[in-house]
Amino acid sequence: MPSHLPQPFGAVVLTISDSRTRGEQQDTSGPAVAASLQAAGFTVEGPHLVPDEQPQIEAALRNNAAHAALVVTTGGTGIAPRDVTPEATRAVCTRILDGFAERMRAAGARCTPLAALSRAISGTCGRTLIVNLPGSPEGAVTSLEAVLDLIPHALVLLSGADPHTASVGAPHRP
Amino acid sequence: MPSHLPQPFGAVVLTISDSRTRGEQQDTSGPAVAASLQAAGFTVEGPHLVPDEQPQIEAALRNNAAHAALVVTTGGTGIAPRDVTPEATRAVCTRILDGFAERMRAAGARCTPLAALSRAISGTCGRTLIVNLPGSPEGAVTSLEAVLDLIPHALVLLSGADPHTASVGAPHRP
Amino acid sequence: MPSHLPQPFGAVVLTISDSRTRGEQQDTSGPAVAASLQAAGFTVEGPHLVPDEQPQIEAALRNNAAHAALVVTTGGTGIAPRDVTPEATRAVCTRILDGFAERMRAAGARCTPLAALSRAISGTCGRTLIVNLPGSPEGAVTSLEAVLDLIPHALVLLSGADPHTASVGAPHRP
Repeated sequence: MPSHLPQPFGAVVLTISDSRTRGEQQDTSGPAVAASLQAAGFTVEGPHLVPDEQPQIEAALRNNAAHAALVVTTGGTGIAPRDVTPEATRAVCTRILDGFAERMRAAGARCTPLAALSRAISGTCGRTLIVNLPGSPEGAVTSLEAVLDLIPHALVLLSGADPHTASVGAPHRP
Repeated sequence: MPSHLPQPFGAVVLTISDSRTRGEQQDTSGPAVAASLQAAGFTVEGPHLVPDEQPQIEAALRNNAAHAALVVTTGGTGIAPRDVTPEATRAVCTRILDGFAERMRAAGARCTPLAALSRAISGTCGRTLIVNLPGSPEGAVTSLEAVLDLIPHALVLLSGADPHTASVGAPHRP
Repeated sequence: MPSHLPQPFGAVVLTISDSRTRGEQQDTSGPAVAASLQAAGFTVEGPHLVPDEQPQIEAALRNNAAHAALVVTTGGTGIAPRDVTPEATRAVCTRILDGFAERMRAAGARCTPLAALSRAISGTCGRTLIVNLPGSPEGAVTSLEAVLDLIPHALVLLSGADPHTASVGAPHRP
């Protein structure tokens, strides 16, 4: 729980992919996301592999939200039939933060037109922030970097602290 | 009802806040929003204080939508557990106008990264336009100014007039 | 079905309007949208006229999605009581693509403040992409052009092909 600032926040990375879960394809996105989070001062667990099955994604989100301040997914945000990460995220979140998705699409559009097709969302599950990222390593890191400065603010607010007095610079640069 | 153009539209300001309703904190946002609306030519009622309780916010929105063309709220749009203004607004609105929230976040982002965390929405309840603004005086006024030029257009459309022939400049600069 | 690349995709244009369906007003938007799609390499059917009745719009969307890769509507996206195209679209789509609406509003805002009031959405119905456009000829063409480069990418993804290997330039410039 992110209540003891300025200790670093705990983050879990989930790679959502059938082929990577089966070992047919190497997971390069999960480690790239984990490295970005570590560089930003988060204590990182994972990446854990989850297949593109909505019930399994929902369970992974809920289980990790029970102990981590931040859960970041990569993969399953497109429009192919097996892409269900946004659906699973919506099912476990009580609040959706449209501003995160907006920023990600804007940042991604500078790299590829496919960014506008991303259905990645972000939201809150209890006091945990859940952030979807696309499945390609470049797309995932670009999207994460587009919201990385917002995440500590969101986590401070979710922890119940007053954002106007808490030093939000401290927790992610311990 | 905004049916007798070019008479000025009626607007109600609601300040949504537990601490301000209990008198523990002074309401500076509500008066700032009211002053901006008056300067834009609206006939303004309020600010009225409402606690962060979804049923009470819904009742206040519905009651004021029954007689005012525009209902503007300030407060309760964040991600803290007691922030429920967007939920109440969604419950009373038949249509959501995503373009308003988009503009507010874009304008707010120039002032503070916290703007991207705002869940403020806008929508229509019958022929009334409801606009959520954040709770800080600066955030509220910045967000209002980001959509102030759209509001008369929306009110003319909601009143049933043809936006292509009605003089939308007239109602808010009587 | 868009499965035989690089053959051109099939698109249907629907003009949603009471007055145009009754012949009281000439449909200039539908032909303008059809011409833009044809110039971009699509095989175009329509425009077909549909009144502003949600059940009829839903039926037209479903019937045309059964044989066309792309269904484009013009009209019924505003906030007047009879504007129900977004509601009908949401009812038939399994996935909504927020990035399309975002782009359209951004492009439209350069022409008219009314663009921010548009409730036009885009989404997928099976393997078909449905795109709402506003009702004015200028608004419709401006909005279509804002997403025209995304559409072939989306159609390739919906057809089940790998977007990283398929030549997405081919289908719309045969």
